[in-house]
This record gives sequence, C-alpha cells and structure tokens, in this order.
Amino acid sequence: MIKITLPDGTQKEFKKGTTPMDVAMSISEGLARAVISARFNNETVEAVTPLESDGSLVLYTWRDKEGKKAFWHSSSHIIAQALEELYPGVKLTIGPAIDNGFYYDVDLPEGKVISEKDFPAIENKALEIARGKHDFKMREVSKADALAKYKSEGNEFKVELIENLNDGEITFCDHDTFTDLCRGGHIPNTGIVKAIKILSVAGAYWRGDEKKKQLTRVYGISFPKQKDLTEYLELLEEAKKRDHRKLGKELELFTFSQKVGQGLPLWLPKGAALRSRLEDFLKKAQKQAGYEMVVTPHIGQKELYVTSGHYAKYGEDSFQPIKTPKEDEEFLLKPMNCPHHCEIYNTKPFSYRELPKRYAEFGTVYRYEQSGELHGLTRVRGFTQDDAHIFCTPDQLDQEFKNVIDLSLYVLGSLGFENFTAQVSVRDLDNPDKYIGSVENWEKAENAIINAAKEKGLDYVIESGEAAFYGPKLDFMVSDALGRQWQLGTIQVDYNLPERFDLTYKGSDNELHRPVMIHRAPFGSMERFIALLLEHTGGNFPLWLIPEQAIILPVSEKHEKYAEKVLNSLENHEIRGLIDSRNETIGKKIREAEMSKIPFMLIVGDQEAENKSLSIRRHGGEDLGSISVEAFAEIINKEINSTLKSFK
Amino acid sequence: MIKITLPDGTQKEFKKGTTPMDVAMSISEGLARAVISARFNNETVEAVTPLESDGSLVLYTWRDKEGKKAFWHSSSHIIAQALEELYPGVKLTIGPAIDNGFYYDVDLPEGKVISEKDFPAIENKALEIARGKHDFKMREVSKADALAKYKSEGNEFKVELIENLNDGEITFCDHDTFTDLCRGGHIPNTGIVKAIKILSVAGAYWRGDEKKKQLTRVYGISFPKQKDLTEYLELLEEAKKRDHRKLGKELELFTFSQKVGQGLPLWLPKGAALRSRLEDFLKKAQKQAGYEMVVTPHIGQKELYVTSGHYAKYGEDSFQPIKTPKEDEEFLLKPMNCPHHCEIYNTKPFSYRELPKRYAEFGTVYRYEQSGELHGLTRVRGFTQDDAHIFCTPDQLDQEFKNVIDLSLYVLGSLGFENFTAQVSVRDLDNPDKYIGSVENWEKAENAIINAAKEKGLDYVIESGEAAFYGPKLDFMVSDALGRQWQLGTIQVDYNLPERFDLTYKGSDNELHRPVMIHRAPFGSMERFIALLLEHTGGNFPLWLIPEQAIILPVSEKHEKYAEKVLNSLENHEIRGLIDSRNETIGKKIREAEMSKIPFMLIVGDQEAENKSLSIRRHGGEDLGSISVEAFAEIINKEINSTLKSFK
Repeated sequence: MIKITLPDGTQKEFKKGTTPMDVAMSISEGLARAVISARFNNETVEAVTPLESDGSLVLYTWRDKEGKKAFWHSSSHIIAQALEELYPGVKLTIGPAIDNGFYYDVDLPEGKVISEKDFPAIENKALEIARGKHDFKMREVSKADALAKYKSEGNEFKVELIENLNDGEITFCDHDTFTDLCRGGHIPNTGIVKAIKILSVAGAYWRGDEKKKQLTRVYGISFPKQKDLTEYLELLEEAKKRDHRKLGKELELFTFSQKVGQGLPLWLPKGAALRSRLEDFLKKAQKQAGYEMVVTPHIGQKELYVTSGHYAKYGEDSFQPIKTPKEDEEFLLKPMNCPHHCEIYNTKPFSYRELPKRYAEFGTVYRYEQSGELHGLTRVRGFTQDDAHIFCTPDQLDQEFKNVIDLSLYVLGSLGFENFTAQVSVRDLDNPDKYIGSVENWEKAENAIINAAKEKGLDYVIESGEAAFYGPKLDFMVSDALGRQWQLGTIQVDYNLPERFDLTYKGSDNELHRPVMIHRAPFGSMERFIALLLEHTGGNFPLWLIPEQAIILPVSEKHEKYAEKVLNSLENHEIRGLIDSRNETIGKKIREAEMSKIPFMLIVGDQEAENKSLSIRRHGGEDLGSISVEAFAEIINKEINSTLKSFK
Repeated sequence: MIKITLPDGTQKEFKKGTTPMDVAMSISEGLARAVISARFNNETVEAVTPLESDGSLVLYTWRDKEGKKAFWHSSSHIIAQALEELYPGVKLTIGPAIDNGFYYDVDLPEGKVISEKDFPAIENKALEIARGKHDFKMREVSKADALAKYKSEGNEFKVELIENLNDGEITFCDHDTFTDLCRGGHIPNTGIVKAIKILSVAGAYWRGDEKKKQLTRVYGISFPKQKDLTEYLELLEEAKKRDHRKLGKELELFTFSQKVGQGLPLWLPKGAALRSRLEDFLKKAQKQAGYEMVVTPHIGQKELYVTSGHYAKYGEDSFQPIKTPKEDEEFLLKPMNCPHHCEIYNTKPFSYRELPKRYAEFGTVYRYEQSGELHGLTRVRGFTQDDAHIFCTPDQLDQEFKNVIDLSLYVLGSLGFENFTAQVSVRDLDNPDKYIGSVENWEKAENAIINAAKEKGLDYVIESGEAAFYGPKLDFMVSDALGRQWQLGTIQVDYNLPERFDLTYKGSDNELHRPVMIHRAPFGSMERFIALLLEHTGGNFPLWLIPEQAIILPVSEKHEKYAEKVLNSLENHEIRGLIDSRNETIGKKIREAEMSKIPFMLIVGDQEAENKSLSIRRHGGEDLGSISVEAFAEIINKEINSTLKSFK
C-alpha cells in the first residue's frame, strides 16, 4: 500500500499502481470525470499514471491553470497528428502549451505553406482525431531507439533534442497512430477536446536563433465545450476592437514616431487633454488628502543613485549613464522619483508634529525595455507615474495606509472600475535575513496593511515571501470589462531609503528618529492606466473625462451660425463640444458621430434656431427631445456629479 | 586734410592730427565736455588721439557702453597707482574694465593682504590722484625698453605679457607719476572720475590657471558724479535683498541638492504650486488663443536630431548621448522641444483650412552649462520652457505674429511688467547666402514682424544681421523694478525645420506646400521667469499668484477652533490661507507675518469669534477693520480681478 496526501492534508492508503484518476474516483465520480491532469510529489503526471510510492497528490481539472496546460499541450499532439496526415513529410519540432492555447513549430515539406484558408481542413482533421477518444499513453524509450526512430524519419530537430537528453529519461507519448517525443503532462484521452481552432501561423526560428532554420509556428486553442470556444472567439473579437493601440489611433490620443524612438509616446492634443483631466482629478483629490505637489528633474547625478543603491543595479540592459565634459561626472535618466523626493525631505529638519509629509509628483521616468517587449502604452520606455511618497512616523503608518487605500478606491471607483482584489505581500518568516528594518517595524507594517485591507472590505490574498527586501506592499488587481486581470495601483512600505538617505525627524522625546516611507501610485502610470481605461471602456470614457462631450450637427449650411452660438454657450457652461460643419447629410453626420463615441449629438435646424433649442440624441440612439442649452448643461452636470463625487 | 565720417553719414574735413575731442568741439561744446572715448575705423582710440587719415569716427560719452568701458579701465590705472603708493613693491598684472566696474590683479608684497578695512585708504588715495586732473597719455615703447623697465622692477608678470607682444605694437600709458603697459582706451584725464569705490577683493590665479601663482583681485567701480555712486550702492543693496536665490530659500520655493546635481532645481511645495498657478494662467490664455497642449518625452533618438540638424552641433561641451544595450542606438536628452512637435505635426496630413496648428507644451529641456556659469534659477542645466510651435501658411504669418505679441503683452502685463522694448532681428542684406528660405518669404516675415511691432505700439529697434539663419525674430526686453534689462519672451520665424522634417499642407490649389513655423515662449522658461519675478517684486507677488494670500493669527490658544473654521471658509472661497497657531504673542505673530510678505493678516480673538468676523490688516500696516469672511473674499476677488483680466 502507498500513502497519498491530498492538498487539504487528508491522507489515504491505496494499493501500489493506483492512478490519480482512481484517487479522484474514490472521492467522487463527478471529480473523476473532471480530472484531466495531476501533480505528484511536485512533478507533473498524467491522470492515468500509476503511482508507486507515498506522496502528495494534486488533482487538476479544466478550471486549473495546470489543467488547461495539460489540455492545450495534449491538443498540440492532436494538431501535430493532423498536420502529419495532411502534410506528409512534415517534420515536428516542439509543441508547448502557452498562456492562451498552444503552438506547434513544424518544418513543412519543400514548397508547402499553411495559410488561413487551410485552417478549416486542419481543424476538421484534428476534431476527427479527437472524436476517436484515443488514450494518451506515455512510455520510456532508450536513447538509441529514440534516435533511430527520428533518424530514419530524417527529423534532424528531434535528433538534436534527443542528443541533449540522457538515456533513461527519454519518453514518448502515443495516441491513435501518432507518436511524439514528450516529457508528459497530458489529459487522459483525445475525446475530452471538443473544440479546436487554429488562430494564426507565423515564422519562428528553430530554437529562437535567427541564424537557424525558419519554421512554421501554428498557433491554436482548444476547449472542452464548443460554447467555450465561441465565447473565447467573441472575446477575442471584442478585445481586438478595444485594443488601446487601435482606439488610441482612431481617437487621436497618442502616436509613436520612428524618429523619436520606440516606446516613447507622443501625446496628441486630445490625448494630452484627457491625461491632463485625469491629472487634475487626482491632484484635486490629493490636495484634499493633504498631499503637496513637488517638481524634480528627469536626471540625477550618479551620487544620488549610489546613495539610493540603484546605481549598483544599473546594468548593461539599462539606458546608459549620461557623461558630461567634466571627467567622472555622470547623470542617469531617472528610473524612479523616490531619491529626488528623499532629497526634498532632507531640505529642512522636521518635527514629529509636522509629519506626515506627503510629496506628490507626476514624475516622468525612463526605463529601457527590449524593443520586442514594447507594447502600445502598456510597455513603454518613458512613462509618467502618479507618484507620491509619504514620510511618516511608525505610529502613523496604520492610518496613512488606510488613507491611501481610500484614495485608491476613490480613484478606481470614479473611473468605473468596480471589481478589485488586493494582493498583500509579506515577509518569508523562514528567511528573516533577507529583509532590512526591525522585526517590530515589519510586524507593525504588515499588520497595518492587513488590517487596512480588512477594514476597507477588500477581497485580499496574503502572499508570504513576496514582499520586497525593503518592506511589505499591497497591489491592486483590477478586472476590466472583458474579465481580464490587471495590476494597477501599488502601495509599498519602505524602511530602506530612509536609512540610505539618513532621513530623520525630531520625536516628542527630542531625539532624532527615522521616518517610514510609503510609495504609492493609484493609477500606476498615466500611460498604462489610459491604455487600460481604453480597453475597459472601449473608448466610451466616463462623461467627465471624455475628450468631446457633445457634437453639434447643423442640418444645413444656413444653421452654422446658430451652431457657433451654441458652441459658445457650451463653452460658457464648461462643456467640451465641437461642430460637424461638413457639407454632408444629417443622417451621415449622426452615423459618424455615433462611430466616434461622442456621448451627445445636438442637432440644430430651422426649428431649433428659431426656438433657441437643441434636439438631443444620446450615443446609442436615445432621443432626449428638444431642450435649451441650459437644460442640456444641467443634464450633463447631473450625470457627471452622479459618477464623480468629491473625495472628501 | 583728412575726411571724417560720422555715424549719421555726415562727412567733414579736418586737418591731419585732429583729435576726436576736436571733432566733438566742432559739433558742440557740450558734446566735447561729455566725450570721454572714441572709436576710429573700428579701433578704440583715446579722445585725444591725433587722427592721421580718412576714416569713420564714433564718439562715446559716459552714457555709452564703450564710454563706460574707457572710464572704468582708466579708473583701474588710478587704483593701480594708489596701490603702488600704499603697498610699495606691489607687482601689477592686468586691470580691465568689466560689465559693472573694473578689477586689477596684483601680486602683493610678501606678508601683505588687503581686506575690507583697507578699502577707505585706497579709495581716498585714488580720489586724491583723480583730483589732480592728470592727462592719460599713450606712447609707443620698444620691446627692449618695455622688457627692461619691468625686468628692473622684478615684475615677471608684465615681462611675460610683453614677451608675447611684437615689437612696434607695444604702448605704455602715463598719468601723473604712473606708467603702465596698456593698449589704450582711456578717458582724457583722471579728473573726470569723481567717485571711486572698492567693492571687494578675491583670489585669482595668474592667467586663470590654477597651477600658477594666486594673485589678489581688487574689484572696484567709479562714476563721474558722487550721486551716481550713491545710487549704485543703494541699488546693489536692494538687489542683494531681492536676490532670487535668497528669496527662493526664505520663501521655501526651490532648492538645489548636491546629490541630484548642480543647476537642477528641486521645486518645493510652495514653489511647485506657484509654478503650477503660472502654468494654469498661461494655459487658460493659450486655450482662448487657440493653442492645443501636447506632451512629448524628454529624450529623442539620434535620428530625430540628425533630421533636425542638431546632432551635428551636439559637441563635447554638451550632455553626452545616452547609449543602450542595442548597438548604435543613441538617445539625446532633449535640448529643445521643436523636433518632437514637428513629428506630432507629421502624424497626419493637413489641409490649409485646418491651419494654423498651435502645439503648446511646458517642455522640460536639458542643456549642459559649465558649473562656473550656473546661477540660481537664471542659469540652470534643466529648465521648463513655456514652449509652443505654430504651423501656419505664409499668408497667416502676419496675423499669427500679432496674436503672439498680444499674448506676450497680456502675460507680462498680468505679472506687473510694464516697460517693454523689442529687438527685431533681421537679415544681413549683404550676405543673402547665410539664410535659408526664399527672399520673398523673408521679406514677408520681416515685414510681418516690423508691422506687428509697430501696430502693437512696441518700442522697438531693428538689428540687421542678427536674425538666425532659419528666420527673423523678435525678443522682448523687460526692465525690472531695479531698472535692469532682461531678455524674456522670444518669437521666432523658422523656415528651416519645416524643410528638414518635410512638413506639408495641402493648399487650395490641391498641391502640397511648406508651412511656416513660429517658435514662441512668453515666459522664456519657468525657472528664469520666476527668478526674474522674484527680483522684480522682491517676493511681493501679485495677489493671484502669491503662495499664501492670508494668514490667520489667533490671539490665544482658545481662538484656534474659530481659526480652523475661518480657514475652512477661506478654502471654500478658494483663498489660500494658513494659521499661525504657535504659542506666541499676537505682536510677534504680526511682525513675522509682515516679514513673510503675506498680503493679509486675519486676527481672530474673543470679539471676532463672537461676531463671526475677522480683523484684517494688510501687509504694510493698513487696517481694514473688522469684517466677515464673505466681505474679505470679496475684497480679495475684486483686487485679483482688477489686475488679472481674461485674455479675450
């Protein structure tokens, strides 16, 4: 008999050779139906692998990340079989699961290519194989036999892979008529795959080395239900429409220039105005919360970063130091604002009665990212943090942390993000030497964070060992309208920089003490936040934020004068509007205004000009009838006030 | 006879050997009395130098820069004589005129030093010499005789100077018993100097080389009237009090950190708020004037500056390029914003109907200055320009230029600068090859600028040949409260960058044309403007701009609660206030509030708390009696509205 320990700590005895599936069956038949993969003693095994010793077992279903991985990896075998059948002579290389689906890199026979029109045939063949409910079966093979198989097939790729493996650790996986070199991690049989889709093909170098042969990478995804695939494809379609790079261009918010450089956004007028409204919104809330704005330069001398400890970490993968005519003088583009703010704190002595000091800055920082990693506004080389540093006494930490959570929730709530979770990162208690600062202070800080998260009703998880060496932190995870998770704001406690910059305050005991520092950024960065907001709202920003709140549509040229007057009145009411004075039909103007996501269309014709009124139509089609500019201003203001509350 | 041409073009004949003074006498006796120096055929001569050939002559009086130079250089001879008499054995080196006065570098006899207490004796001795009305007389000396004189005196400095001169070009200047090696440029006699003052002494290395001997530099100034000296010393005293570095520290506006680096200001909360109010003020006016804000990064790729032509000029005296892990990739810290704005213009095609486009940005730029040249906020290494670039058709240039002048005058007027002059810099018509752009466009642009200056009633001068190679410009010169001239805003026409960036618009003829570009910055830079504003106002900023408009002074601790309420009401009226809640007498609080230049003191005691009123005292002492918060808010708003008009 062997002793199996399950994740909840229960132990059960089974006879040797029991499979994870058998264990699942001993718990419930439903579970057994759902189990598709497992982990035994921290190694991935098949649901049907016989277990031969004592050990801890985790069972995975489709709902688990590991379950999906086995599902998609198995699907890559099915696709590979389909390709072998449809493209005789194709050479297989590797076929792993990825975050969303899987791929298989293949070397197609001379003269063959796969294009979109070939996808249905491959999918159909794969589904046909899947429906055969063929078991995935692992078996050990000697190195000699493995080499012999692939040498005989002329597959130099698999030969190369096998040559780097040791005899005794080589396995093949069989299903149906198909065999592949494989380390394992499959679902029980092909029949579980009910839907399979080729998403795209692309070129990929063997082993990612551009000096080696270019292969064809076939990307696919698969699901246990057809309905899941349909939903996924809809989501994909929607995500494409909401891609912030696409929307940013359509709405003329930002652009990139080859000459200025990759990853360095240029904010166009509408984008700059949007950004400025977001900044003003946060500035106002921050003022109410007792923050003071400061302004610091975008470079700092080497000495600054030697003091902060960043210089030592400034490696070859960063923007390199800026030299000057003076020997040994070096400046760095600032990768963060904290060292500058520490120097501001150090400008004059503080008493405990003057703390906390809260210095805020929309600070633009620069970090070198590899060009391949750049992505729209979410991965850039220059970005503006809505940064602030709070310098407080250890006793004030608890309250300050709560205040920052309040501010963060206010910010996210005002922008229509409603689902938050929080990740609290604390010490690894087994490795106390990894951390700077006294145990007492760490306990205080961690408790402060956990209490604050609890008190504010956040849905939080605690991750041990995930704290930075300088202090614990809380990260906000936000779900967007498509259900995707994003990390946004962060709040971090820091015991390190106050030491390094020798920051002090005079306590009530008249002695000098170290303040604690909190780093925080509710948006994270303006660039990333706006990208996310674009994808979350699909460009339908909250009314208070949207670049143009209303578009005036004159029915014909003779109504333009009145349209101008209306625009003027809107400006006096601080409503952002514009006129579509093109020589087009009113129908076309309405259709295009609808496309450009402007919330209100104000149609002005003879009747309106005469009555000094506006015919109002909402984005989406609702007709609000004919009303005065004042009444319209009231509608807008009411709507704004209902979503945008004051912070305090 | 020789023919003398005067600056106004008139020509007169004189006999050979006529002196500039004789020429002056032929014009008027008054002029002859005032003439102290001259320039003949573009070489400095004495007022008493005999003129031996035809040529053009400029006569200088004390009012001219050249006249002052001769006056102060001559004064350095007088001081040198005084030093020789008071410190026998002193070795003279060089004694030039400088911007304000002169200095003489001397090697004092072993064991001797000059300190402030010695100044009166030197000044008295110098005045005694001056009163002797000794003529300054130039004479040629052979190199051998010149060397012999100074070798016999053991003056190795003068010997070194003479050794580097050619025989035949060496002159001495004599007055009274004193002789000095000198190229000339003196006033007629010592008697013209009526007031002379030693300002300071400092160490200075011979020839500025720190490996050579350290000399004593004696700084002085002199005037043709005692009254001029008195006024100058008062101005100096006032300027010291108004030094923006001193005020910036006292008012906690900005600071510098050795670690962050010299010339890189850190804006403290009050300074950042002040700056932000200035920016908001300009933003509002710019919005009314049809500008659109953009945001661009602080770095740009090498390619950007190769296109703009700046890369070629980026020399060893600049911040050096930022290298990256990618070979051959280089970024520069941006020294100006125009290339970025050109790339924004190039984002999409424009029709003539969409122009002008006016892109504005508070763009922070970085330029390396030698550490010795850095000075507070007026010479820094990083500064924020209130920059904008207007892209317009050649036909729109005239109107756009006038609009920019209007905006500049509005900005300066709102900040209390009332005396403007303008310098219009145009082509050198004799060197047409120096300039880019068609003659037709240059004429259009120059006329546009001159007409605009004329029409706007500016007091302007035209400087030929002072235009940049890319276009003509207009600079605003502003006199501050101490009568000092500063260059502030600039408006420049540019034909170069539109070419280099291949900017176009589609004209009414459906063809592509080049737009003209205007660079402009009404403040110049935030740093320099705030420095100037500090020195101009001595920290007594206009009420709308000042960091704290009112300070609440509770008479005793028990009035603090009411003080808090008052502060709250002020905030609701958008008045910036604070409470002095220290445990001090009301007298002391008033005295210190007076020092800190806060415009209004609101005294609250028993009576005020009971009547819900404030006892108001203005900075300077005026008593405004006891009124309500609302009445006080009205006073402030009225005062602000009377100085700060809306732009349009």
